[in-house]
Amino acid sequence: MFTLGSSMKMTVFGSSHGEAVGSIIDGFPIGFKIPLDYVQKYMEYRRPGSSILTSQRKEDDEVEIISGLHEGYTDGSPLTLIIRNKNVISSYYSEIRENPRPGHSDYTMFLKYGEFRNYEGGGFLSGRMTAPLVAAGSIAKAYLEGMGIKVKSYMRSIGDVECSRVSGEAYSFETRMPDPECDARARELIMRVMKAGDSIGGRIDTVVENFPGGVGEPFFDSVESSIAHAIFSIPAVKAIEFGDGFRLASMLGSEANDPFDLADGKIVTKTNHNGGILGGITNGMPIRFSIAVKPTPSIHIPQQTVNLSTSEKTTITVKGRHDPCVAIRAVPVVECLTSFVLLDLLIQSGNVNRYARKTR
Amino acid sequence: MFTLGSSMKMTVFGSSHGEAVGSIIDGFPIGFKIPLDYVQKYMEYRRPGSSILTSQRKEDDEVEIISGLHEGYTDGSPLTLIIRNKNVISSYYSEIRENPRPGHSDYTMFLKYGEFRNYEGGGFLSGRMTAPLVAAGSIAKAYLEGMGIKVKSYMRSIGDVECSRVSGEAYSFETRMPDPECDARARELIMRVMKAGDSIGGRIDTVVENFPGGVGEPFFDSVESSIAHAIFSIPAVKAIEFGDGFRLASMLGSEANDPFDLADGKIVTKTNHNGGILGGITNGMPIRFSIAVKPTPSIHIPQQTVNLSTSEKTTITVKGRHDPCVAIRAVPVVECLTSFVLLDLLIQSGNVNRYARKTR
Amino acid sequence: MFTLGSSMKMTVFGSSHGEAVGSIIDGFPIGFKIPLDYVQKYMEYRRPGSSILTSQRKEDDEVEIISGLHEGYTDGSPLTLIIRNKNVISSYYSEIRENPRPGHSDYTMFLKYGEFRNYEGGGFLSGRMTAPLVAAGSIAKAYLEGMGIKVKSYMRSIGDVECSRVSGEAYSFETRMPDPECDARARELIMRVMKAGDSIGGRIDTVVENFPGGVGEPFFDSVESSIAHAIFSIPAVKAIEFGDGFRLASMLGSEANDPFDLADGKIVTKTNHNGGILGGITNGMPIRFSIAVKPTPSIHIPQQTVNLSTSEKTTITVKGRHDPCVAIRAVPVVECLTSFVLLDLLIQSGNVNRYARKTR
Amino acid sequence: MFTLGSSMKMTVFGSSHGEAVGSIIDGFPIGFKIPLDYVQKYMEYRRPGSSILTSQRKEDDEVEIISGLHEGYTDGSPLTLIIRNKNVISSYYSEIRENPRPGHSDYTMFLKYGEFRNYEGGGFLSGRMTAPLVAAGSIAKAYLEGMGIKVKSYMRSIGDVECSRVSGEAYSFETRMPDPECDARARELIMRVMKAGDSIGGRIDTVVENFPGGVGEPFFDSVESSIAHAIFSIPAVKAIEFGDGFRLASMLGSEANDPFDLADGKIVTKTNHNGGILGGITNGMPIRFSIAVKPTPSIHIPQQTVNLSTSEKTTITVKGRHDPCVAIRAVPVVECLTSFVLLDLLIQSGNVNRYARKTR
Repeated sequence: MFTLGSSMKMTVFGSSHGEAVGSIIDGFPIGFKIPLDYVQKYMEYRRPGSSILTSQRKEDDEVEIISGLHEGYTDGSPLTLIIRNKNVISSYYSEIRENPRPGHSDYTMFLKYGEFRNYEGGGFLSGRMTAPLVAAGSIAKAYLEGMGIKVKSYMRSIGDVECSRVSGEAYSFETRMPDPECDARARELIMRVMKAGDSIGGRIDTVVENFPGGVGEPFFDSVESSIAHAIFSIPAVKAIEFGDGFRLASMLGSEANDPFDLADGKIVTKTNHNGGILGGITNGMPIRFSIAVKPTPSIHIPQQTVNLSTSEKTTITVKGRHDPCVAIRAVPVVECLTSFVLLDLLIQSGNVNRYARKTR
Repeated sequence: MFTLGSSMKMTVFGSSHGEAVGSIIDGFPIGFKIPLDYVQKYMEYRRPGSSILTSQRKEDDEVEIISGLHEGYTDGSPLTLIIRNKNVISSYYSEIRENPRPGHSDYTMFLKYGEFRNYEGGGFLSGRMTAPLVAAGSIAKAYLEGMGIKVKSYMRSIGDVECSRVSGEAYSFETRMPDPECDARARELIMRVMKAGDSIGGRIDTVVENFPGGVGEPFFDSVESSIAHAIFSIPAVKAIEFGDGFRLASMLGSEANDPFDLADGKIVTKTNHNGGILGGITNGMPIRFSIAVKPTPSIHIPQQTVNLSTSEKTTITVKGRHDPCVAIRAVPVVECLTSFVLLDLLIQSGNVNRYARKTR
Repeated sequence: MFTLGSSMKMTVFGSSHGEAVGSIIDGFPIGFKIPLDYVQKYMEYRRPGSSILTSQRKEDDEVEIISGLHEGYTDGSPLTLIIRNKNVISSYYSEIRENPRPGHSDYTMFLKYGEFRNYEGGGFLSGRMTAPLVAAGSIAKAYLEGMGIKVKSYMRSIGDVECSRVSGEAYSFETRMPDPECDARARELIMRVMKAGDSIGGRIDTVVENFPGGVGEPFFDSVESSIAHAIFSIPAVKAIEFGDGFRLASMLGSEANDPFDLADGKIVTKTNHNGGILGGITNGMPIRFSIAVKPTPSIHIPQQTVNLSTSEKTTITVKGRHDPCVAIRAVPVVECLTSFVLLDLLIQSGNVNRYARKTR
Repeated sequence: MFTLGSSMKMTVFGSSHGEAVGSIIDGFPIGFKIPLDYVQKYMEYRRPGSSILTSQRKEDDEVEIISGLHEGYTDGSPLTLIIRNKNVISSYYSEIRENPRPGHSDYTMFLKYGEFRNYEGGGFLSGRMTAPLVAAGSIAKAYLEGMGIKVKSYMRSIGDVECSRVSGEAYSFETRMPDPECDARARELIMRVMKAGDSIGGRIDTVVENFPGGVGEPFFDSVESSIAHAIFSIPAVKAIEFGDGFRLASMLGSEANDPFDLADGKIVTKTNHNGGILGGITNGMPIRFSIAVKPTPSIHIPQQTVNLSTSEKTTITVKGRHDPCVAIRAVPVVECLTSFVLLDLLIQSGNVNRYARKTR
């Protein structure tokens, strides 16, 4: 339930307004020196309050590793990562206990957990839970980089601002759109949305380069199944497509098939409509997928709801600090969580033997 | 790897040109009388050769249940479903051993399995493997109907023919478009594509009605994660979206949120942009999702490939019987596989106790 | 539930009086040529009717492999093994539907499954279910032999006849006691027990030679946990001990510790009180364990029971064909099931990469 | 690997000389108020230093719960239990890095992890790891008590001192033998062993009363398989038997079968040779099992070992604080871990619905 993965597993714990959030990784390859700066850099990319475009909740988000290392190297036992919650303000949430916010999990959690619902700030379905995903996933990402594999996510569109160019590093732009001109336009849109007390959705693209072919586990643990399963755990994600995705539904076979070719003696495909995956197994071409993140449901505009005690219609206006475009902070989450899934698949497929490294 | 599910598991086996394909279901609720006619009806919906729009391979697709029943009722032990392969012609496939077909899993299977690759007809990554998915899933679908839950899939678009009306039963139309006028147009398009030796993709919508709220298992086994994981196992599926899906990426929060309302004293939402799922948990509204099926990669048009032995470029023209629009036959697969996932979730969430029924 | 294993999984299906029993293996290393004669030889060791000391039920026990092979080699998809039930006589069992047999699972199955209980011959908890365990396990055993690993089980005691010598092959003796003199004495005891309409228990020892060190997965998947989990699935097994087992409870540390030593430059232990396992991980010495098999509960002596419908005390005398000492037929089951567990552990520990073999 | 359980899972983390040890429970029933005093009482039973018969290492063993509770009740998200390590002295362990201690996991961990071995104090295979087992298990035990189920473990023998009486509470005696006279004799034996710098093994019995019938999951998750799997995770356990265990190997069927009878209109068995389990499923009688704990391998007597760097024979004398009879501290571990397994089985079998409780 709170665990993801096959050969390597991640369990997340904690909640928005509890003492801490965190994750445990079981099955990580031994003998890996965890680059804490790298982890912390990704925590920073995800952290709220770093820009006026994101929630002003203050969080240090320092990752504490309390198990799984011996003299700085992974020792074959579970890595336990803890991120303390700070700057937690529960008073905002007394109203939502009774009046579920539209678009949020308040009502569905009430149906499932009744009076025991952990409701403050969305409890354990809060966006806060993406902090341990980044913590765990960034370690996997660092491992993949050691193998020469690059996982890159960036913002492709926000509202109707679409960015077809990649002319810079996503993290050097506030909107994570990898181009100064797109970034400026998207920024302007978000500022307008913010002023209206509203929020806006976005679309995130991911490209994985230099990933080996032959990875993916038929029949049910295809690369698409494994990535999609993980990605839909990220709150607010509502769609995913691989390669050309939905456009393939209106294409001819003669357009959609990627003919084989040779490049420097290696077998490649001339095009990559299938996003590097055929039959659920990688073919050595870049893995490509795109996801939709819905607009933050927390908005400062009055919305209709129903009181859970009185069963009467009422109006709710969400207060407090919120991201006008939560997709921005989802970019490093997608990048890190995808890295976790890919390392798991590499172990499953026998490309990485977690006990192979015996000396430093 | 070949097993799907949490509280109830399905394992598929067999391959396109082997002796049989089949599936095993472990954890199905006890005391259920399996309606064999119902199962066979769904096998018929998926069966090739039933229309000139589908592959002319002849298959009986009779489902034989060799374990798991006692006096006609499920007995708590695994249900083993076997579908014998008939009318298998391997001679078509001698060429593709060396020359991988673009868009197919030939090359990725070669990377993964080398000389041991089960290559005839795509081996165990063939569309043939959807027969056991339908067999197993249709039993789950029958169980859900006993609870009043309806799972319906139908074709929404083929190529550029889009169908916005639902004016009939999908299975009463050859193209599974639920409207006579759309069906006629789509049929015409497919005939044209067939004549050109080409193929075409399609888009399938699914709606689940009367499904209880509060179902779905945070954090990693959300309804979206569970459905997406299963659906991406269906060969040729490349995209999925829930509710308004990718359109949510360009919507405002004030548009995307579904305000709560009352209907006959029950809490409902006025709109359903979120497809009946919030925070990964059902809210009692219809579950809605849409998927893209790419065009059949097997086409009768010459395509470039690379010979695996000689590493030289060559041309391949796929021969034999193929579906011009494989999405048509995917409709019952999506419907049945979704039913399997939903019953699994109902057991996990405690809505169905598989040992509760003790008397007939 | 009906699945065993971590990196490689076995699912069993069928029941005593159903159409067939069988097993599915998912995750077996690719490129292995299955020696069918070897499998059939082990089926023969387990088969009833082969000696007057075992049940006279006639079974061919021919193993049919309907999936998972390509040109005779394992192809990476599940191996499905089917053994048809023949010579099934259900008339014996009308009485036990109402009157549970002492020592059998009749009553506990009634508690769990109620009217849907598969009761004939013990249903899916019958000794018949050990046939698919042998079928699946013997393939793993053949694989281990290819690595030079030898798994040997034999009878150590039957009733008060104990055998401390190993002077021959277990399977060359009817009682599986590896010594002619012990075998003769045990045979005489069993004949006496048979004449009295009674049954007798036995103890089986297992030794694994040439198994690599460093195998076993802390914390919960130790070698002992993994073997014990599997072995207690064999009907009638009620105890297991590793190395000196229960005797260690009355030993001093100075007696129980196995001092390290050198032999031909390799680290070994002088003694092997710990049965080749320390901290749940193998140390390269022979793995040793011993199990207890209770006497067959089916006896021809009247026993008190309670009628499930009337809730009145009554007497039952079990009729039909039964083993006077079911432990005899358990010997190959233990040997084969242990082999399955050990191969699973070798894959988990990275000693066997299931995708490594790419050419014949 | 570090996770145990099916419907409810426990993951343990940490190591003997790391910062902390702990466990995570995923899937615990919602709405349960955790009795912290009860948990702490069991921690105290296991804690070293509480008697001169146990290791003098000082530990507070205070359990900190950092997630999984909302207003004091379990909220459906993972419970994270942390126990900080204090009084850790690593200097004792410099010698054992090179010279593996006989009977310990030093050498097998070296084989598995090489230079990355977490060796101080046995790392994550230390007896210290039983602290999180008790923490997690005691919560399950408290839950079972709320259902009227009693799980009791006590010492049955230490060396040759056997205790056949139960005349008091195990925890009121230093040796956990539930009788003053046995306790005195066992105490004397241990004092003698301590003086000799040696250690001694012991045998622990467990009885579960008032457990419902019909629980246990065929085929591979029988009650015996589930309990044995868990119990063999406890360091130093080398044997387990259910009911009459090994004695059943020399019994007749007419002796071993438990005839059915009536008591107050309920079906019971006259005897309980099978320990409350038939066909792997409970029958409503007390569950009984017994285990062997080997003597602590750490002794103050010189023993032969082999240096891992030089490959030369040498002698090691283990220094530091150790239990002369580690079985004493294993008693609460067995009791709590068994409780965890039983609650997991109750959820799996549908006797406990983890989402059933919706109001306080």
